[in-house]
Amino acid sequence: MRRKGLASMAVQTVASTTGTVDLGPASGLSCRECGEVFALGPIFACELCFGPLEVKYAYDLPSATATFPTGSALRKQIENGPASIWRYAPLLPVPADVATKPNLNPGWTKLVQADNLARELGVERGRLFVKDDSGNPTHSFKDRVVAQALEAARAFGFTTLSCSSTGNLAGAVGAAAARAGFRSCVFIPHDLEQGKIVMAAVYGGELVGIEGTYDDVNRFCSELIGDPAGEGWGFVNVNLRPYYGEGSKTLAYEICEQLGWQLPDQIVIPIASGSQLTKIDKGLQELIKLGLVEDKPYKIFGAQAEGCSPVSAAFKAGHDVVRPQKPDTIAKSLAIGNPADGPYVLDICRRTGGAVEDVTDEQIVDAIKLLARTEGIFTETAGGTTLGVAKKLIEAGAIDPSLTTVVVNTGDGLKTLDAVAPTTGMTAVISPNLDSFREAGLA
Amino acid sequence: MRRKGLASMAVQTVASTTGTVDLGPASGLSCRECGEVFALGPIFACELCFGPLEVKYAYDLPSATATFPTGSALRKQIENGPASIWRYAPLLPVPADVATKPNLNPGWTKLVQADNLARELGVERGRLFVKDDSGNPTHSFKDRVVAQALEAARAFGFTTLSCSSTGNLAGAVGAAAARAGFRSCVFIPHDLEQGKIVMAAVYGGELVGIEGTYDDVNRFCSELIGDPAGEGWGFVNVNLRPYYGEGSKTLAYEICEQLGWQLPDQIVIPIASGSQLTKIDKGLQELIKLGLVEDKPYKIFGAQAEGCSPVSAAFKAGHDVVRPQKPDTIAKSLAIGNPADGPYVLDICRRTGGAVEDVTDEQIVDAIKLLARTEGIFTETAGGTTLGVAKKLIEAGAIDPSLTTVVVNTGDGLKTLDAVAPTTGMTAVISPNLDSFREAGLA
Repeated sequence: MRRKGLASMAVQTVASTTGTVDLGPASGLSCRECGEVFALGPIFACELCFGPLEVKYAYDLPSATATFPTGSALRKQIENGPASIWRYAPLLPVPADVATKPNLNPGWTKLVQADNLARELGVERGRLFVKDDSGNPTHSFKDRVVAQALEAARAFGFTTLSCSSTGNLAGAVGAAAARAGFRSCVFIPHDLEQGKIVMAAVYGGELVGIEGTYDDVNRFCSELIGDPAGEGWGFVNVNLRPYYGEGSKTLAYEICEQLGWQLPDQIVIPIASGSQLTKIDKGLQELIKLGLVEDKPYKIFGAQAEGCSPVSAAFKAGHDVVRPQKPDTIAKSLAIGNPADGPYVLDICRRTGGAVEDVTDEQIVDAIKLLARTEGIFTETAGGTTLGVAKKLIEAGAIDPSLTTVVVNTGDGLKTLDAVAPTTGMTAVISPNLDSFREAGLA
Repeated sequence: MRRKGLASMAVQTVASTTGTVDLGPASGLSCRECGEVFALGPIFACELCFGPLEVKYAYDLPSATATFPTGSALRKQIENGPASIWRYAPLLPVPADVATKPNLNPGWTKLVQADNLARELGVERGRLFVKDDSGNPTHSFKDRVVAQALEAARAFGFTTLSCSSTGNLAGAVGAAAARAGFRSCVFIPHDLEQGKIVMAAVYGGELVGIEGTYDDVNRFCSELIGDPAGEGWGFVNVNLRPYYGEGSKTLAYEICEQLGWQLPDQIVIPIASGSQLTKIDKGLQELIKLGLVEDKPYKIFGAQAEGCSPVSAAFKAGHDVVRPQKPDTIAKSLAIGNPADGPYVLDICRRTGGAVEDVTDEQIVDAIKLLARTEGIFTETAGGTTLGVAKKLIEAGAIDPSLTTVVVNTGDGLKTLDAVAPTTGMTAVISPNLDSFREAGLA
């Protein structure tokens, strides 16, 4: 990856309709493919090579570390910050006073030491942790990324927050927009389950059903961005995607801080587009570079459902590119058949000595129940996928049970009740008397 | 209320099967009616007058304040504590090392400054707050009370955690028991909605359907406590009720600490049994007595659904006692027709200058949507009831819009989707093209 002209980026700014762009330490965007740099703005693809853009920071510059706080000074600043992702504002594309602006203040969710689960999986006591993002305001990690996109939308003078979605993202955008005083307009396939429609619609924004598949919804959104009708619209996962993605770094920051400013040895992360996994790796690298944690090897493992396992298939076949699949799995929030960040995920998992693995729908349901009955955490199908893969990799010896392992739980079981309903019910039905109780063998 | 023999209680202990009972500052139980005192144990009714028992503390004693930390010293101790209810361990019936035991670590939920909502309700900016307990591990305030009951169960050597429930409590008990390594056995009416059964059953404990009404379930549980079959069973809301109830005090503690160690002027609380409201008042009184907040008047308001409004009816009629009602409301978690703490609630609301009010099911749904579209918080029907009543009281002039008001949101909208589903949906369905978008008037 080349670096050119980044020094001049540090002082470069873009005028938006509301004035100068202040996104804190963010100094510009750069292409992940060709390294070309761009000023901060609502753009997401390189003008030269169409590669994805990502945010560059003042602290990326070799010379900047002289003035940017590092190590224990930065640690102290973070520890004194708010109990939300904004404690890491110095490392994010947000203004320094971000916590004072109306937003949902996501993050700083629990890192649960999962000793019961460890016992069942044969992991050493005190070595297994679940990062439980169901504790976020709308109960998924999407609140983290949407909060970043919202700040970019503010900076660029947008007044409408939008996205295409089939679930968690719709609610996260609707809620964040409501709180921040933005209009929201979310696009979904018209035939979504009623429960998901309610969860997205209740925040009072526009919720537009598109007659077509999720791919049709996406295509329509791209069209809208290029049209005057889409002016002033921030699509969190399209034209604000470079900022949006940075929200996932906060998972890495929190995990390390909650481990006492240490890197985990092994971390298991679900793969949808693959963005979250790549950004967690980016976050870990930043912590090392800034002297917040001691450098040491860590392994990153990616988790997919068998019914949508293009990255896992490529990993096992030794391929560098990902062949698209047609998804068919209960893990709908991971059902992206052509994941944009697939090649980067493969690179990270191979480079760190990790792996990508997949599990069946049945194993996903089993893992949901395993986590609930051992730790009292009810996760959605994506979390079941991640834990199911962790279990499989521990059994296969790919994950070392004597080292620290973190399993990332990205969402809440209340949103995917249908997945466990057929096999989860009452253990007995009795008459209201002690004889009936004894006959049922419950005494 | 008389006080007798409390000094001797401070050194009194009860041997359980696991040894001496250590419940921290808890020194005994006393009858709320006749003042008789008892040693700590799994009892809930006075042997003399059958009045309800409540926990007494070392810091209740006039002489104890000399050794018990107060004021700024206690504030500092709390502020350095964990980000959960256990920061208040010195004020709760739990051992000092409670945070090291496996539990769900509930509490320390967000106090949201609700300026958008304030604007809509005509409240002065910066004066309206929502205490959002949907952020708890199983997304309701029940995690607070169950966590207390669990510590009492540990202290008394119980191995099974149990309760009767129609919703939130079942999940809270199932999850807490799983995490703590307890067996759980929860009793529900057999004809509960499937979604609620799944939410309770997923944690893997026994979930027993009782052929009968919720009253039949309750009667059966009382029978089981008196039978050898119920030996070693802690029913969180029956034989552990005095401890269980103390969990609600933490709402009062957190609200005041989050307001900068200040009492709110006005606080609106839902009424089911009425326990939560009385314990919040108790918590506020303790903060005053221990010098954690400055003493000043505050008003407590109780909220009920019109379809189950026995306390509101008694308040309006000027009665001291509550006439039972047959519940018929969408606010099922508040549908207790004969609330045990009704008379105490009436006393507190009258004494503080507050009120008890009720709203219709339609107003409950409107309030759920109002909170979602203004602050991005999706509450359940109980929260809709509380906000609906707050709105009604502001409009009636009973709540002063220039003073600080806290509205307590006890649960999560994902658990009562049915309440809003009929009136919450897509705003438009369009074909995936710009012409269709424009025709729908969305541009």
